[in-house]
Amino acid sequence: MNLPMKATIVEVGPRDGFQSIKEFIPTPLKLQIIEKLIEANFKKIEITSFVSPKAIPQMKDAKEVVAHLLENYSDKKDIFHALVPNLYGAKAAYEAGLREITYVISTSVSHNQANVRRSREESFDELKEIKDIFPEMKVKFAVATVFGCPYEGDIKIEEVKWMIQNGLDIGVDEFCLADTIGVANPLQIERVLSELKADFSDIDFSLHLHDTRGMGLANVLSALQLGITKFESATGGLGGCPFAPGAAGNIASEDLINMLENMGVKTGIDLDKVLSVIPIIKKEIKPVLTSHLAYVDTTCVVKE
Amino acid sequence: MNLPMKATIVEVGPRDGFQSIKEFIPTPLKLQIIEKLIEANFKKIEITSFVSPKAIPQMKDAKEVVAHLLENYSDKKDIFHALVPNLYGAKAAYEAGLREITYVISTSVSHNQANVRRSREESFDELKEIKDIFPEMKVKFAVATVFGCPYEGDIKIEEVKWMIQNGLDIGVDEFCLADTIGVANPLQIERVLSELKADFSDIDFSLHLHDTRGMGLANVLSALQLGITKFESATGGLGGCPFAPGAAGNIASEDLINMLENMGVKTGIDLDKVLSVIPIIKKEIKPVLTSHLAYVDTTCVVKE
Repeated sequence: MNLPMKATIVEVGPRDGFQSIKEFIPTPLKLQIIEKLIEANFKKIEITSFVSPKAIPQMKDAKEVVAHLLENYSDKKDIFHALVPNLYGAKAAYEAGLREITYVISTSVSHNQANVRRSREESFDELKEIKDIFPEMKVKFAVATVFGCPYEGDIKIEEVKWMIQNGLDIGVDEFCLADTIGVANPLQIERVLSELKADFSDIDFSLHLHDTRGMGLANVLSALQLGITKFESATGGLGGCPFAPGAAGNIASEDLINMLENMGVKTGIDLDKVLSVIPIIKKEIKPVLTSHLAYVDTTCVVKE
Repeated sequence: MNLPMKATIVEVGPRDGFQSIKEFIPTPLKLQIIEKLIEANFKKIEITSFVSPKAIPQMKDAKEVVAHLLENYSDKKDIFHALVPNLYGAKAAYEAGLREITYVISTSVSHNQANVRRSREESFDELKEIKDIFPEMKVKFAVATVFGCPYEGDIKIEEVKWMIQNGLDIGVDEFCLADTIGVANPLQIERVLSELKADFSDIDFSLHLHDTRGMGLANVLSALQLGITKFESATGGLGGCPFAPGAAGNIASEDLINMLENMGVKTGIDLDKVLSVIPIIKKEIKPVLTSHLAYVDTTCVVKE
């Protein structure tokens, strides 16, 4: 098995995880968790999203979250980024002081309509505007529903290529392919990524995988063998898309880090510090965690 | 990715799953679940274990379970087998009418002592006696703690080879390598299995994996690529070893079947019928299920 020497983990729990929690998580608790994730040495954390507070009330404190973190971690500003669904969100993120955003467009026409209430073309037009208005804003283009859509089912690879080409034309900085509802299987990961890498050999794709059907880490294994080295995950396995029925948690950061490190793929992240977040999440947020390590009886973990 | 055309799934939920449930599951409920698993077309089901009812009270109805199934499925007798830890158990299984057993010995000296209260050599002596007394009894040799032990940590490959050679010398019919506490990683699966297949090229190893740390299906993927085509799993992801602290559920049969079928690896099993067992388990047994599909909102599964 041909595995890379190291991998980069992007923690998206504070955005994708928290947005799946109905009850509002108090801002100080959000910050407490994010600070522990910074301590654990994640180099990239998606800390919030600038979305309509009517659509996702959980994210109504985006501005405060960003302000606090930029003030207290002024030397680590490039760790932080936020998801935005449109120009309005990008402006808010910029004004809050962020210089990096995740901009999401769904490959599926109907999911894009449900998620951000506009056509894909409208989404691309706004992305172009964002790039024009804020040329220094780094944009990670999240290509959603690449591997399946809750409304349309299978997604044609040509549609994904069209999405990527549009992103290239606009000049986005990064491409993240998302299995929004956790339906991808390892063979599909291989098939889709092989074809995309052949057509777009200059792009270092990252993956955003959900573990809805338990295939998350198997999909990571498949992707690693193709040279993919950047993965998004959420501590505790929190997650789900509010506008993707049936979506469940992201792959859990701790499960992912544990697998990678055990295979000798270095992440640079302190697993124990990540695990120290779990009791806080369990006690204060009380979600159903899809993480496995979150439930391992650590009093009897195998001796090294 | 080089995957086999088909795979065999051995359902061990009625043994490994049920033994992890403290409250006694009434015999008719056990039989109801097993009958649904037969309907789902599993060709091999570990239906119970013949162990001391003091050690594992859940299995005290082993005789009744076997009697009912042999009577009602006289044309499908070869589906059924039971786990036994010693000669006493093998005798009881034989008397109950079974002609196939799983005999478990741990690679780890201390886990074998904790699990079956004897040395590995004593376990092999009893296995030899079983083969002598019941030559027509098919024996699947479950080599436990191959990939790690809760007491001893890492397991040396030489120890595993010693176990297998002993099994060969005694003339067992099948070898099943067990990750009893769910610590194996995909690279380790590749390393261990490559070495064992090189030394024992005539053996078709099967795998019994636990999903304690979420690597279950990734490990399956790794094994598939090495030509392994037989896996044990438990519907609902029930499971755990009463004498292996920290062990958690088996890989869930439904998650495994779903991944395999989605990759074009045929299992011959009716996934919907397997899933029909889940509400019964949830309602009547109320365990924490580590299965993923058990929690997928099937009202919004992706359209085909």
